[in-house]
This record gives sequence, C-alpha cells and structure tokens, in this order.
Amino acid sequence: MLSIIKPTLVLNSGICRENIRRMAEKAHNAGVQFRPHFKTHQSAKIGEWFKQFGVEAITVSSVKMAEYFAANGWKDITIAFPLNILEIKNINRLASRIKLGVTVENIESTRFLTEKATSPLAVWIKIDTGYNRTGIDASDYTLIDSVIHQISSCQNLNLKGFLTHTGQTYETTSTGEIFNRHFDALLKLKSLKNRYSGLFPKIEISMGDTPSATICDNFSGVDELRPGNFVFYDVMQQNLGVCSFDDIAVRMVCPVVAKHASRNEVVIHGGAVHFSKDEVKNTDGKKMFGRIVIIRNGEKILLDTMNYLSKLSQEHGILKVAQSQMGNFNVGDLVEILPVHSCLTANLMGHYVTTEGEFIEMMPRF
Amino acid sequence: MLSIIKPTLVLNSGICRENIRRMAEKAHNAGVQFRPHFKTHQSAKIGEWFKQFGVEAITVSSVKMAEYFAANGWKDITIAFPLNILEIKNINRLASRIKLGVTVENIESTRFLTEKATSPLAVWIKIDTGYNRTGIDASDYTLIDSVIHQISSCQNLNLKGFLTHTGQTYETTSTGEIFNRHFDALLKLKSLKNRYSGLFPKIEISMGDTPSATICDNFSGVDELRPGNFVFYDVMQQNLGVCSFDDIAVRMVCPVVAKHASRNEVVIHGGAVHFSKDEVKNTDGKKMFGRIVIIRNGEKILLDTMNYLSKLSQEHGILKVAQSQMGNFNVGDLVEILPVHSCLTANLMGHYVTTEGEFIEMMPRF
Repeated sequence: MLSIIKPTLVLNSGICRENIRRMAEKAHNAGVQFRPHFKTHQSAKIGEWFKQFGVEAITVSSVKMAEYFAANGWKDITIAFPLNILEIKNINRLASRIKLGVTVENIESTRFLTEKATSPLAVWIKIDTGYNRTGIDASDYTLIDSVIHQISSCQNLNLKGFLTHTGQTYETTSTGEIFNRHFDALLKLKSLKNRYSGLFPKIEISMGDTPSATICDNFSGVDELRPGNFVFYDVMQQNLGVCSFDDIAVRMVCPVVAKHASRNEVVIHGGAVHFSKDEVKNTDGKKMFGRIVIIRNGEKILLDTMNYLSKLSQEHGILKVAQSQMGNFNVGDLVEILPVHSCLTANLMGHYVTTEGEFIEMMPRF
Repeated sequence: MLSIIKPTLVLNSGICRENIRRMAEKAHNAGVQFRPHFKTHQSAKIGEWFKQFGVEAITVSSVKMAEYFAANGWKDITIAFPLNILEIKNINRLASRIKLGVTVENIESTRFLTEKATSPLAVWIKIDTGYNRTGIDASDYTLIDSVIHQISSCQNLNLKGFLTHTGQTYETTSTGEIFNRHFDALLKLKSLKNRYSGLFPKIEISMGDTPSATICDNFSGVDELRPGNFVFYDVMQQNLGVCSFDDIAVRMVCPVVAKHASRNEVVIHGGAVHFSKDEVKNTDGKKMFGRIVIIRNGEKILLDTMNYLSKLSQEHGILKVAQSQMGNFNVGDLVEILPVHSCLTANLMGHYVTTEGEFIEMMPRF
C-alpha cells in the first residue's frame, strides 16, 4: 500500500506492460516494424519494458528527447518533428553515434540538411494526410519531387520514405470515423509508395497514431507503426472508443481538501500544474479534465459522468459531484482521477510511482 | 545576444524588477504588508530580487513550495491553499523552523489541526468573497464562529484573520468590473474584521489578486497584499486591461520549423509542454495561446491580433498569420511569443534564461 500525501501520478505497471505487449504483438502479427513513440512516457525505465517485447527502434518528438534516450542506450531513433535547422550541431553529434532519423517537409530545411549533414541521416518526408498540422500535402508531387531530389543529392542523406501522423482520428465522434480516416491516410501513403518505389525500391511508409493503431487492422503496405499514447491511454482515448477504462495505466491520486455542499463541489489538491489544461467535453456539454474513482471498503469505484473534474486552477481542482455521492468525499480522503491526456499529465509530473511503490524518473526538463 | 536553438523562456530581468519595485512601493505607500505570491516564478533567485525591495514575508501554494523557499532562507511563509491534513508531518516540521501560516476553510481540517499541531502556526480563515472556488462564504457567521472557536481552543494555533483570493476579477470584460469586484470583496472582508475585532483586536485581512492589486487604489483596512502574477504579467493580464505589453517580463522564444502558405500558418517548435494549454479568446472569437513578436532589422515588432498562436499539440505550435505577414516568417527564424498565462508556462519550462544570458533555476518538480 502506497502512502500518498500529495498529488501523485500512480502507474500500474501491469496494465502498462500489457498495453505494450498487445501493441508489439499486433505490429509483429501485421509484419510491421514497431517504432513506438516515447514522448508519452519520456522515461528510460519504461523504455526498458519495451525492450522485453523486442523493441529496438523508437520515435521521439525533439532533439532533446533523442539525446536523452540515446544516453540511455537506444541506438535507432527517429525524431518525428519537422527538422529544426537551428539544432543541426546536436543532430550531427547524435547521428555520429546512433542511427538517427529526421523528418523534413520543405525545401528550405532539406537544402540546409544537404549542406550541413556531416554524418549519415535517415530522412523521412512528412506527409499531411488530412490532419493539416504539418507535412506536405499527399498530392503535392511537385514539392515531394523537389524534396526527394534534394535528399538524393547528398551522400549523407538516406531517403527512408513517407511518414504521417493521422491526428485527424482524434477529431472523431465514432470508431467508424477512425477506420475511415485511417484508411484514407493509408491509401494516400500507399499511392506515394507506389509512385516512387520504381526509383526507390526500399522506400517505406510510416504511420500509426494511437486510435488507429489500436482499433484498425488494415496495415497492408505499411512498413512502420509509431503510436505513443497507448502505453498509458487516457480518458480522451476512452472517450473516442479506443480503449476501455481498464486499459488506462496512470491515475493522479489527489487529496480532498474541502467540500462545498451548497454547490455539490469537492476541492482537491491537483490542478493545472498536475493535470494540464487539456479537456474533453463531458456528457453535460461542459469541460471535463478527468474522471473520478473513489475507494469504498477497499473497492475502487469509477463514478459516472455526473461526477468529474470540472475546473482547474494552478493547484486547485474542482470536482463536480452528484448530490448522492457527496457523502463519499471527506476532507483527508484520497481520490483517483483518470487523466484526460496522459502525455501532458506525465510531462508535468516528471516522475511516476508504481502501484508497487517504485519511483520511476522521467527525462529532466532541461 | 543569446544563442537560442530551441524553445526557451527568456526573462527580461529589468522589466521583472520594475514590476516588483512598483508593487512593493504601492503596498508600502498604502501602508499594507506586501506578501507576494511566489507560485508564479517559483525561483529562489528571483525571490532574492524581492528582498532588495524589503520583502521578508511570502505566500506559496503548496507545502512543497514552502519547503523549497524555506530551504532558500525565507522565514515567514503563508501556504495560501486549503490545509491538506495528510501533510501534517511536513507542516509541523516546517513550523518548528520558520514562521508558517496555513489556511483553513472548514471544521474538519481545523479540528485536525487543533489535535495535531506541534508547533506554533498562524491560521488564516479562507473567505469566499464571490469567486466560488474555495473558502467559507463571507456571510456564513455560524461556520466562521465555529472555526474561530476551534482555533482558539489550541495553544499552538494563532488566529491571523481572513484571507481571500478575488479570482472573480479574472472573469471581467472591463477594468470597471475589476474595481467593482475588488471593492465588493473588500467590503465583505472589512465587515468580518469589524465583527470580530472586538474579541480579536489584532485580526487582519489579506487579499490581492494581480488585477486588483495592480489597478485598484482602495486598500483601506487591508493588512496584507498577496499578488503573484504581476512579477511577469502575461497576455491574460494585458487582455484584462491590467498591464501593457511592455510590462510582460517573459517571452517564449521559439524556432520556426515550417510554413504553410495555403492556410497562412507557420509551425514553431513550442507546444503544450512549453506554453500550457491556457487560452484567452482572440478578437476573431478563436482560442489564442500567445501573441507574436517578430524581429525585423534588429527591431522587435508586436504583430496585431490577426497574428497569434492558434493551436498547440505536445511539441508543435501553430501560428495563424495574416497574409501580409507571411513573408516575415522563414524556416530557421526565431519568433518571440508573449504567453497567455506566465505562471503555467514558467512551471512547465522549469528555468529561465535572462536577456543577459543568465540561467535561472526554479523549484524542482519533485
């Protein structure tokens, strides 16, 4: 039994390892390289758990994170974020030591790379398959041709293929939509692969946001899968229909510090500096920052959506609680909150405590 | 000239010290004890700057933060967060070494304190003056009487007075409303002071959110002022009419990594793990996470509200940019972003780099 006295991010390592096992097995069965994104857990220790399932190649979201995992023994890392040319020295240094992949999406940074890369680099072209955040539009062959031409002009650059993040699966209201959006993105990437595989027979495609990697089964033609959030899942994924509550591996455990019966509210120590301000819409149409689990007679009970984390300031969290549940909250109690977005919550907390009481560090902030 | 290659929180120490000087002077002139809230900067080094303006007493928002500042030489600290009874051991340990103040707002934790306090503690009663987050309603004399009765029953507890956070000043659309809400809260606290000063002649009132502490002048009867955010200010305060852009002491400096001319967007390295997801509403009715400053011919130019930080994912920031400004953004440029909520941005970044290039640490995450 853990002795918790302040907001603590508790990790159920059993659930977490099972999430890893399932995804590794799925990728294996589909004949796809599994290159999990480590931005969710940001932890060398949790990284070790992946190795037990045969993972040797990973994805990260910054040069800093690549440096951290390289320092912790990882030798094959893709930075799935548009190349920041200002960090070229760090990229070159890292590329001289490990197999490093970078992502480009424009002529400017590709040209820069051809001039400045001093060690072999795997280069992925970021393709926008509909999320409209970053990447070259999948049908913009002119630009893709130019970028490929640039890459091919430099001996240190090795064209790996086309990489996308199908983030549009997060903007769905049914799993059917997730299937559709995944399939649409898959077709776009396969069409690119077909187009360029004559000249580049080894060209690959890389995709795999957590929603589609979890629920879709069609990965025909896909070479690499890069989900990240699945390691913990969260209320956002549950809300999308991607996972069940039982798959969520992290919980914020927070002390109850006050009750306000006149407005059916409970105040916890647990605020924006613990959860982040990411939100989903609750069934009542209001902002929801987490779901509530209470402990009664040793049993954990997930409360329904009439009860939820409804407001956050820096250190305060306000639970909206159904009248019938108010008696279940007392000053000094600990409540468990399933976070809306586990990546941002973990990033804020900077460490985990496992249900067995083990302390697990994360990448330092600087 | 700083050499910045990745998202960096840059602190203008001149502006920051001037913000401190002005607020210290205002409190001094009003004859009010200045007990600034240190949750915004969370830094021992910046704390030192306050000492130069005569500050000896501070406010914090957690026991952990009290421990950090006590370890850095502060001897008079109020924890302005509802007492978390689970942390009583840490509170007792700290109270044996420094002058410690705690905040109560219910019978349960007050009774707990009377039984468990082993060292002298200053006790503030948290009053809700209309923000409806925490505190006892200012007119709930029955509860206030009971809490005072409890406090008085214990030798180690010293009733300090009534403390409020007038957070409702943040929910305003004009400075006139800020004046009204401040005055309303002030009247409520003064009425309590009058009511109890017969029995407790030394009873005090403590208030002072940044909006009212900055723009209001009526602090008649107030004993203590506790603003925090003013040390840096931010776009939220500017938006409220509380400060000017020139008063904002922190900026996130971020590299431009991509441009998408077809939708007038620029991608920066700078996301939710740097800024937090706190937002204000932009003039176009959309979510806004920061205002943009560009550097042209050595001159810094604040762009209008047609240009703003419009979307955040974990590491990506999307700038919405007016067509006429697109030419001013190039891959590899650094842009400066005025953050919406400096407290949460600083908390995420964990350190500052001053405009002179000095590295300033903050409280560790754990």
